[in-house]
Formats: sequence, C-alpha cells, structure tokens
Amino acid sequence: MANIAMHISLDTAEIEYFKSVVKRKSVKKNAIVLDAGEICRSIYFVDKGCLRIFYTDSDAGEHNISFCPEYWWAVDISSFSGQGPSFYSIGALEDTEVFYLSYPVLEELYLKVPKFERFFRILTQNGFNLYQHRITSNLSKTAEERYFQFQKQYPKLELRIAQKHIASYLGITPVFLSMLRHK
Amino acid sequence: MANIAMHISLDTAEIEYFKSVVKRKSVKKNAIVLDAGEICRSIYFVDKGCLRIFYTDSDAGEHNISFCPEYWWAVDISSFSGQGPSFYSIGALEDTEVFYLSYPVLEELYLKVPKFERFFRILTQNGFNLYQHRITSNLSKTAEERYFQFQKQYPKLELRIAQKHIASYLGITPVFLSMLRHK
Repeated sequence: MANIAMHISLDTAEIEYFKSVVKRKSVKKNAIVLDAGEICRSIYFVDKGCLRIFYTDSDAGEHNISFCPEYWWAVDISSFSGQGPSFYSIGALEDTEVFYLSYPVLEELYLKVPKFERFFRILTQNGFNLYQHRITSNLSKTAEERYFQFQKQYPKLELRIAQKHIASYLGITPVFLSMLRHK
Repeated sequence: MANIAMHISLDTAEIEYFKSVVKRKSVKKNAIVLDAGEICRSIYFVDKGCLRIFYTDSDAGEHNISFCPEYWWAVDISSFSGQGPSFYSIGALEDTEVFYLSYPVLEELYLKVPKFERFFRILTQNGFNLYQHRITSNLSKTAEERYFQFQKQYPKLELRIAQKHIASYLGITPVFLSMLRHK
C-alpha cells in the first residue's frame, strides 16, 4: 500500500476495495510463475523474495531480462494486456511472497477506481525508463560498467542469487563475471 | 486522432479540448529537439518524418536508442515526468512534423479528461514491451538477426536514413552493417 500511496491518494473505501481484490501467494524457490507460451493472467508485486523475467532461446539457453526483488513488479506486458501467449517466463530465485491482480480484476479496478490508471501509468513509465537505460548500457558500456550498474540498481542482490543468473543478465559468461568480481 | 481513438473513446467536447491544447511544429533535418542536460519539456508525436532518441557517451560517440518515424512518440520519460535534466537527446533525421504536449498541458489534460491516463498508460506499455524485446535481442540474438528485426520493426526506414544511424542502433560498425546488407 505504501508503494501505491507514493503515486496516488486513495480514500478509505478505495483502499478497502483494493484490499478486497488483490490476492497473495507464496512461490517456492525455482518454481515457475509463468511459462513462455502460456497466457500471462496476472501482474505480480513482490513483497518478499525475488522473481526473474527471462527468455529461453531455441538452444534452451536462458537470458535474464530483469530481476524483481522486494517492491518490484513482474509481468509479460504484451501477453497480459492482450491476453495472448507469453514470450517470457517468470520464475522465483528465492522463496517469494507476491501480491497479484488478474487481468479481469485489474480492468475492473480501472473502471471502479480510475486513479489506478494513473498508478499503473507511472509504474509502467518507471519500467520504460529502466529498460531504456538498460539498452543504453548494452550499446555503450563495458561489461565492467554494466556490472557496477547492476550493483547500484539492485543493492546486495548479488549476495542472494546465483552467479550464473547475474552473468546471464549482464550478457557475459560466469567465468568472465568471476574475473570482474575479483578485480 | 486516429491513434488516440484506437485506445480510448472521446466525446466531441473532449476531442475539441484536446485539439485546443496540442501544438504542432516543423523540425528541420538534423535539428535537435532536446539536448541532453536540458529539461524535456514536451512529449512529441511524429506526424511525418523521423526523430531519433540517442545517448552521447563521454567520447562524444552517439548511440541511437530508438527511431520514431510516423505515428511513434518521443520523449525522455524520466526528464519529462520529473522535469529534471535529460539523459538523452532527441534529433530529427528528416524534415519532420510533430504534434507535442508540454508537461503542464499534459498534467491538466489528465485532470480534465482522465481517459488520457489510460491512453498514456497503453502507449507507455507498448514502449515498455518494445524495449523489453530490444534487451532480449541484445542478449540473445546475432547482429544479423537484430538487423532483420530492425527491418521488421521499421519497414522501409533503412531507405530513408543514413547507414551510420542504423549501425549505431544495432550496436555494430557501419562496415559490418554493410557486410550484412550484401549477404
């Protein structure tokens, strides 16, 4: 709720309505929340733990697009907004607690409390901005600079998740990541 | 207006109000619409021509983040939404006609016609989705595959803009792009 309150102000009835429609669940470490090809039925907000959004290529190689630790959100936006097959998968890197809203619930929320349009616009803007900078880094920064950026973006996350996931996120091999870390 | 009508339905008064606040201007080829460090005061919609969003590194190298031909929009979202210094620059690759909304005008539009929250949420979602896929390509695709994706994303744009801009967008040298094109 604190995250929402940062962007929009809701009255008591609106807060109660939101609380009545949002759901919560536990996801075990390594469990898959969304498998590529399925319809992404919900948008997830991480309360505790860490999710990752990843792409699996035709050689079964996995590429981490983003990490979603506490207070981040995770969704295959194209699949969710069109309710078609997803391109990305979402999995848990730790035992994770999420809040989630299904597509019909969110659409009804927009109708009943239009302020949530604003909230999700701002949330999406922030994600858009983040991704824009990630593209910039890929085009213009060295692996070492991208590693420092990862550390800044996700403070202490590298103590929680496997090296191979960070290497995949940076687009380098685990061996090269290990070299960077020892420097 | 057709682009807006795809996502939200407006009544006559709302359309008239929108038309009364949106502005239009011509931008000469190679002119700069936004210089990194300035505040991004407006969001631009390309009616004709082509803009590019780019980042200039410390060695004065330019990296094209995205192209914005007809019906695309261009903004430094972080600078615009916080009205702080921009990280990106925006320039014209052709003589370009844009519609634009300044920050205070857009904020007032949200208050007067809240449906525009929805419109800009969807617009941002689409941009978010596009960038997510661009990150995926950078992590998992070869330069040749990325070049095909560029051609699909921006049909016939390569006939209109200089090779060096496409190479910069793909993160390869113009010489390597030329090799790909001759294959």
